[in-house]
Amino acid sequence: MTDTTQNTRVLLASRPHGEPTSANFRIESVPMPEPADGEVLLRTVYLSLDPYMRGRMNEAKSYAAPVELGAVMEGGTVAEVIQSRDPSLKPGDMVLSHLGWQSHGVQQARHVRKLDPARAPISTAVGVLGMPGFTAYAGLLEIGRPQSGETVVVAAAAGPVGSAVGQIARIKGARAVGIAGGAEKVAWLEELGFDVALDHRSPTFRDDLKAAVPDGIDVYFENVGGHVWEAVLPRLNTYARVPVCGLVAHYNETEPREGPDRSARLMSAILTKSITVRGFIQHEFVKSHYKQFQADAAEWIRDGSLRHREDVVDGLENAPDAFFGMLSGKNFGKLLVRVGEDPTR
Amino acid sequence: MTDTTQNTRVLLASRPHGEPTSANFRIESVPMPEPADGEVLLRTVYLSLDPYMRGRMNEAKSYAAPVELGAVMEGGTVAEVIQSRDPSLKPGDMVLSHLGWQSHGVQQARHVRKLDPARAPISTAVGVLGMPGFTAYAGLLEIGRPQSGETVVVAAAAGPVGSAVGQIARIKGARAVGIAGGAEKVAWLEELGFDVALDHRSPTFRDDLKAAVPDGIDVYFENVGGHVWEAVLPRLNTYARVPVCGLVAHYNETEPREGPDRSARLMSAILTKSITVRGFIQHEFVKSHYKQFQADAAEWIRDGSLRHREDVVDGLENAPDAFFGMLSGKNFGKLLVRVGEDPTR
Repeated sequence: MTDTTQNTRVLLASRPHGEPTSANFRIESVPMPEPADGEVLLRTVYLSLDPYMRGRMNEAKSYAAPVELGAVMEGGTVAEVIQSRDPSLKPGDMVLSHLGWQSHGVQQARHVRKLDPARAPISTAVGVLGMPGFTAYAGLLEIGRPQSGETVVVAAAAGPVGSAVGQIARIKGARAVGIAGGAEKVAWLEELGFDVALDHRSPTFRDDLKAAVPDGIDVYFENVGGHVWEAVLPRLNTYARVPVCGLVAHYNETEPREGPDRSARLMSAILTKSITVRGFIQHEFVKSHYKQFQADAAEWIRDGSLRHREDVVDGLENAPDAFFGMLSGKNFGKLLVRVGEDPTR
Repeated sequence: MTDTTQNTRVLLASRPHGEPTSANFRIESVPMPEPADGEVLLRTVYLSLDPYMRGRMNEAKSYAAPVELGAVMEGGTVAEVIQSRDPSLKPGDMVLSHLGWQSHGVQQARHVRKLDPARAPISTAVGVLGMPGFTAYAGLLEIGRPQSGETVVVAAAAGPVGSAVGQIARIKGARAVGIAGGAEKVAWLEELGFDVALDHRSPTFRDDLKAAVPDGIDVYFENVGGHVWEAVLPRLNTYARVPVCGLVAHYNETEPREGPDRSARLMSAILTKSITVRGFIQHEFVKSHYKQFQADAAEWIRDGSLRHREDVVDGLENAPDAFFGMLSGKNFGKLLVRVGEDPTR
């Protein structure tokens, strides 16, 4: 199944203008890299696909530096050690790594984290127990700070971040209202225990949201932007908190939307309702909160209060299409590409 | 000078659509009110005019309930006790009160605060030592949280809030950049010790601002909105804090401005730079910070590090015109109406 002499990788071939297309990527095969002292050669098992990658395709700096043209697309991975030149790891070990969109790669052993397949499925290291789960945890608890009895609304609620936000809100005693696209996702949110789940594609979405939050909204966890944010804004309570984690509805926009200019109305709502709007990226909270997150999340998964769902696509060559689908909300749960076989399953 | 049998007052006659005009006010004379037990009859010396009053003229709830049609326009006042039915106050005492736009009024003694004219000029109780000074103090220190060496930018910097923001920023070791309208105000900001003072009416304002903040902006204290905010946004640093105190450029707008819609660009900047935008009104901080403010401000005034300027208009009948001027930036310093003679000067 895996060619052991060649590394297959997906490069950024050109920068998208608006929606990315296959033409922005190039797949190539190169000789297998060799690890130096202190390094390991890894075989990718799972590649995590995440919305932030769209920002990395642009020339302009977003949270972080862009991917260079001709470079491997960046991304978190779960991989198997196939050759080790470091005493801390041996062949067969499973590690959390950052190989990007490729079948193999070399990393310094100290830059990867060894996973215990007996503790949790290895794929969760890039999902509910990894970056998306931590994003939900840190953004909700450190910026959103939901109090017992308050109302938390989250968009893209069937995604890996949103589903964790809603469930953690409930664990903390808040009401959770999830917004997603389509009946199937809505049904899953109800199954997860969201107090209300709404379909933002419904023609009555605005009224549905109003009815779902009779006491207004205290925390809105923003993943989306667009018409969902437009519907949420007038429902925010005084002292509401809005952690801004993503704006996927706008990532492919090349020009500002048509007028009128709603920015003054937004600032005016912030002023008159003493609202906090706070952008963040999870890095900021790693030192202070990651350890506690790992402990809390593991416990919540064990007791069944934090559940997750994966959407697995097979084959690295299918990563671009899966990525395009994610940007338009087609994935259902944490989107993973199974690049090579998972020896733990 | 003062008719001791009549109370002159300015009522809200109609709600403005856009810019307020004289037609929105009505001046009337009514018999002097009588204090009951526990109350005092007061004679207004200074009426404070503040931008928030524009919001109170609208039907919609802003921070607080609107002024009712036919009711006295609301406002903070410094007044002299002329009759007391409470043991805590006697005729001749000067008090901070909330009589609104009228020459006399009755208040419960426990709702006013006795002033000590020997400690500070009584007018400062509605200025640098009162609500505007406290707004600057709480918004800057609790939301802006400037660190030594950071850059603080403030708009409407020659106003009572803005001038205090810049000076307190400097007291805390930050660089202060003030933005105001016109050469005279800019010169005064330089005299106050602002590191840079800029005229937002200059055709080169955007470039001037860029040059004034070579290390970007860490705190932007928002009083204004409009083109000043547009120029500030791209200069904000990662983790910048934006206390939103006022948006005077938009208060008279009846419709959103023409497109394109800049709200997504604003949210996107908040996201990618992990910016905090936080609306506030000083009430929120009174319990926790007012006492410390009084102590700090008194010390800073004594040592000369916190200076202020007053713009005094004589006669209650001139309050509407003075108010209109303030909304378009014509006042220079804290705008006060001297409603009756100041016996302490």
